[in-house]
Amino acid sequence: MNLDQKHSGKLFILSGPSGAGKGTICKRLLEETELELSISMTTRAPREGEIHGQHYYFVDEEEFVKRIEADGFLEHAQVYGRRYGTPKEPVIEKLEKGIDVILEIDIQGALKVKENYPDGVFVFILPPSMSELRKRLTGRGTETAEAIEMRLGETLKELSFIEKYDYCVVNGELEEAVARVKSIVVAEHSRVTMTAEELVRRYKEDE
Amino acid sequence: MNLDQKHSGKLFILSGPSGAGKGTICKRLLEETELELSISMTTRAPREGEIHGQHYYFVDEEEFVKRIEADGFLEHAQVYGRRYGTPKEPVIEKLEKGIDVILEIDIQGALKVKENYPDGVFVFILPPSMSELRKRLTGRGTETAEAIEMRLGETLKELSFIEKYDYCVVNGELEEAVARVKSIVVAEHSRVTMTAEELVRRYKEDE
Repeated sequence: MNLDQKHSGKLFILSGPSGAGKGTICKRLLEETELELSISMTTRAPREGEIHGQHYYFVDEEEFVKRIEADGFLEHAQVYGRRYGTPKEPVIEKLEKGIDVILEIDIQGALKVKENYPDGVFVFILPPSMSELRKRLTGRGTETAEAIEMRLGETLKELSFIEKYDYCVVNGELEEAVARVKSIVVAEHSRVTMTAEELVRRYKEDE
Repeated sequence: MNLDQKHSGKLFILSGPSGAGKGTICKRLLEETELELSISMTTRAPREGEIHGQHYYFVDEEEFVKRIEADGFLEHAQVYGRRYGTPKEPVIEKLEKGIDVILEIDIQGALKVKENYPDGVFVFILPPSMSELRKRLTGRGTETAEAIEMRLGETLKELSFIEKYDYCVVNGELEEAVARVKSIVVAEHSRVTMTAEELVRRYKEDE
């Protein structure tokens, strides 16, 4: 009897404001679990060392637009004239094989994914506090104080989308946050999805 | 800022057919986590070594009936003229203090709890197969072969209530089943319950 509690894969969307640490958590999950990363598609040129099908699917404008028209993205956006998107097909293929997929994405993107794939499990990664977030963004040393304040203002707006998510994980202690996301993955695979009829039939077959 | 992801306790109902191993899993959780057991009330006499308020609350018929009339039970039943029930008050008190409570109970009882406390997290413990369940029940050596077959028939009926539950955990390997229930507890405390307004307010206060 197949009751191994893992009939098909699930799509886990890890999202949250910049600086909350979703990238770090995602990296740890890829290293320590069987979750596989959803790979984005882009029209920008590959940078040195970037591999097609690993870092991104690199395509030209024509191919990207064709895919948009064929409803082939879970979400897509344009940034400074370059297109970025999450192609549906590779994600669905993995899920059908029983592989869990993780998608790390900003909040705008996650909200679009939710429209196209409401069965996803939406996890909001929260910074422990605004002051800690300011410290992290300042520590990166890549933005001016003014840009950071703008980003913090943006974050407060982004937090208001929390109710669109299933789970939230405060990333204060990284270990704890990683463990929490792992627990969410296990719990989601323990949810009752089978009908009573199906369950009884399985047990009867085994008698 | 209090964002410790544990604002109030949750009631976890561990239920399932006889022989599925809910008692063993419950014992492990009490030993290894901060979950506290819900203690039943009964009108039967204490057996040797049984302590009031630890194994049971031992009360007389009059007190039990008074409590029923005051709507003071999450569930109650009568077995061979003795009454058993889950008193509401001690459970609610713990939950309000932020303590998670675990209630180990048969399926009939769990369904009654669900009517009275739908906010509970209902976990169905499943045996890995009917043949394994038969083996376990036979191994106990407490029942005749005939009684065991009756119980297995009963189990098939009980499985049909699976859809009333939030989660199901197959207890094939005990360690895995215990870990799975622990993950469910963590995930349930990661669910988004705060409103957007409340969350934004908290982060603003901290700025």
